[in-house]
Amino acid sequence: MAVIGELRAVTAGAAMLSEGLRTRQVGVSWRPPLRPLVPDPAVDAANELAVGRLLDARPAWVGVGVAGDVIPAMRRDLLLHSGPPLRCEDASGPMRGALEGALRLEGRDAADLEPCHHHQAVGPMAGVIAPSMPVAVIQDRVSGRLAYSNLNEGMGRVLRYGANDEAVLDRLRWMASVLGPDLARALEGGPIDLTSINQRALQMGDELHNRHRAATSLLFRELALRGLPAESLRFVDQNDYFYLNLAMAAAKVACAAAAGVPHSTLVVTMARNGTEFGIRISGDPDRWFVAPAPVPVGLFLGRYGQADANPDIGDSAITETYGLGGFAMAAAPAITRVVGGTARTALEATLEMYEITLAEHPHHQVPALDFRGTPTGIDVRRVVETGIQPLINTGIAHREPGVGQVGAGLVRAPLQPFLEAFDALAGTRSDAARAVRGGSA
Amino acid sequence: MAVIGELRAVTAGAAMLSEGLRTRQVGVSWRPPLRPLVPDPAVDAANELAVGRLLDARPAWVGVGVAGDVIPAMRRDLLLHSGPPLRCEDASGPMRGALEGALRLEGRDAADLEPCHHHQAVGPMAGVIAPSMPVAVIQDRVSGRLAYSNLNEGMGRVLRYGANDEAVLDRLRWMASVLGPDLARALEGGPIDLTSINQRALQMGDELHNRHRAATSLLFRELALRGLPAESLRFVDQNDYFYLNLAMAAAKVACAAAAGVPHSTLVVTMARNGTEFGIRISGDPDRWFVAPAPVPVGLFLGRYGQADANPDIGDSAITETYGLGGFAMAAAPAITRVVGGTARTALEATLEMYEITLAEHPHHQVPALDFRGTPTGIDVRRVVETGIQPLINTGIAHREPGVGQVGAGLVRAPLQPFLEAFDALAGTRSDAARAVRGGSA
Repeated sequence: MAVIGELRAVTAGAAMLSEGLRTRQVGVSWRPPLRPLVPDPAVDAANELAVGRLLDARPAWVGVGVAGDVIPAMRRDLLLHSGPPLRCEDASGPMRGALEGALRLEGRDAADLEPCHHHQAVGPMAGVIAPSMPVAVIQDRVSGRLAYSNLNEGMGRVLRYGANDEAVLDRLRWMASVLGPDLARALEGGPIDLTSINQRALQMGDELHNRHRAATSLLFRELALRGLPAESLRFVDQNDYFYLNLAMAAAKVACAAAAGVPHSTLVVTMARNGTEFGIRISGDPDRWFVAPAPVPVGLFLGRYGQADANPDIGDSAITETYGLGGFAMAAAPAITRVVGGTARTALEATLEMYEITLAEHPHHQVPALDFRGTPTGIDVRRVVETGIQPLINTGIAHREPGVGQVGAGLVRAPLQPFLEAFDALAGTRSDAARAVRGGSA
Repeated sequence: MAVIGELRAVTAGAAMLSEGLRTRQVGVSWRPPLRPLVPDPAVDAANELAVGRLLDARPAWVGVGVAGDVIPAMRRDLLLHSGPPLRCEDASGPMRGALEGALRLEGRDAADLEPCHHHQAVGPMAGVIAPSMPVAVIQDRVSGRLAYSNLNEGMGRVLRYGANDEAVLDRLRWMASVLGPDLARALEGGPIDLTSINQRALQMGDELHNRHRAATSLLFRELALRGLPAESLRFVDQNDYFYLNLAMAAAKVACAAAAGVPHSTLVVTMARNGTEFGIRISGDPDRWFVAPAPVPVGLFLGRYGQADANPDIGDSAITETYGLGGFAMAAAPAITRVVGGTARTALEATLEMYEITLAEHPHHQVPALDFRGTPTGIDVRRVVETGIQPLINTGIAHREPGVGQVGAGLVRAPLQPFLEAFDALAGTRSDAARAVRGGSA
């Protein structure tokens, strides 16, 4: 199993990045709100309920199954992809590469496309989940809900970054025939508590989107003690990003628990398909608000540079939706070696995100902030009031299919989907207010 | 194997601690030097050579043997203890408890006492090494030198904190009969690079004296991949301090490489035996400079408090001598939950230690300081010039024998040994100067 080791960043977009952060810093200057906010106790109450469910969730890894067997409404002629709904003709290079690889893996000429998020699933980067792939099953032990993710392939030339050569497909076949069944047996010993791993990993320098060395180490300890066979154990050991997909599914199941509270402006999905960036909100959880996906700024591998970067892609922004990743950078100053910036900008990023969130996660504590919980639960109202765009840590795929990862960096969520979501909800609320006034007249 | 889990601190000496740190902060106010410094290029050159050897060392864990077989000049009727030389009648409670337990373990009525440090060994807290105990063998891959440490027993009621009941001795017997041989077999696969683990652990929130969760996790990965049997693997997993003794022996072998450079004022040993605190310097490496051991201030377990604390004890200050522990607190803001203080005081502690050290360790980098190396190589001259006392993170033993650990905290090295070492070296240097002048007259 050839797995490329730690990401080595050799060229820089650090200056741009630093500039980008500076202009967005907390307290830089007062700006007029993008939208005037009208106090609305019903929305406040809805958000309190929704974010409470987000914080209460206790995700655990409960099993591994085959996607076609366990994912709800999965079909043999269906491929799942990251982000909001995507028409085939709009797919970016890395998404096309991943979809082509998945078709060859399945031995098919064509398949339907649907978002992972429409099946309670998430996948990093292209996020392609094919029916034959092994998937992790995550359960919120409080609500009983389930969420799913594919398993992490490692770094470099991997399907999720759009690579699809035979070595990529061979690895995926090995994951289906060996790794998945090995992990399923290891999990027969009982669930693995992911809140506990998240909590400890944030105290060990992970931010749980682009840095997972501590979480993967803690997970490795669990798996080794459960007797995971040597070959699979070695695969986990060689990939410090192994925990990423579990962190994502944990965040997904927590966000799912918070979805569907009428009038809530809590963001329960942020996701990108390489073409568009989209969000969904608790009060209207099936509706996507989208805008063109921005291009991340960051550090690049080897000879690659900013011009090679695909627009932002992947369901992994579910970690920021859950108060991790870019929102938890203060916990992970070493992440700056991967995504750019300095220890100070990492700290300031987290501090800024408190401005647009509803709560501090009681279990996701940041030692460098004297154990303050990470800023959790993005409020659409606060985003449109402050103009502060959620900060996302991300990998960067080459814009051509078949190449793979070229770097990692930071990206700001575009404001447009938040403005549209706000206006849509405001419309609903004023309709409701009119109805109430009408009723009492 | 009953091993008490993570230290839970419930009462506080945090106010005192914070006060202690504040009065020692960098740049608080100018103070007249305790001793006037006369520039001496020969000392500068000696220190450059000595600290270069300290930084060049590449400690690796190469084996496990029985103390009586592998430690140089170890005898069947000898017990090793931490700190400077100690007369039996001067031993503190926890040291007496540990020595009594070791005698019972060996089935002896009496034994001679010598410091671990006189046998290229180190042990945490009481630091008792008996001939039958398994010890880790650490090698500096550059100089080829060896150093030794006992293996970590876990937390709570353990020999090194002065507990000596049958459960303590049973655990030690199991470590000798099962754990030691298991680890020895695992190491037959080749050495484990401790510089690499140190480096990664400092980027994962360890300071490598009182916090070893990351280092132990990384070590666990190595040991699991080498097929360490399940019972021993579980023992390592249940004790996040398992790495401590290896970190200490790694520091010891590096300091040994730096010892013996004529005229160097580099500190190569700081150690405490529960009664006295002592240092040794590179230019006169066999001579101890001692003072009464101070009592650490910190956080206490359960019903215990400051009045229960024994004076400072253990060879573990070798980690500070190597630029870790108290010197690396900026890397480990979570350590404040164990030893007291805040993220800010942890950062300031490291910044202050740059004032009394000769170098920054190229592999021991602190992400929160944008990957600046930890302050490494204490210069006696800078300590006596600035009056800044080296800061040591430490465990706290109950002052009575047989009880065990009662807390953890911080302690400042007393100045007296540094002043005496400085005066002794200054005497040597002025004798040398007189001899030169005499010779040229």
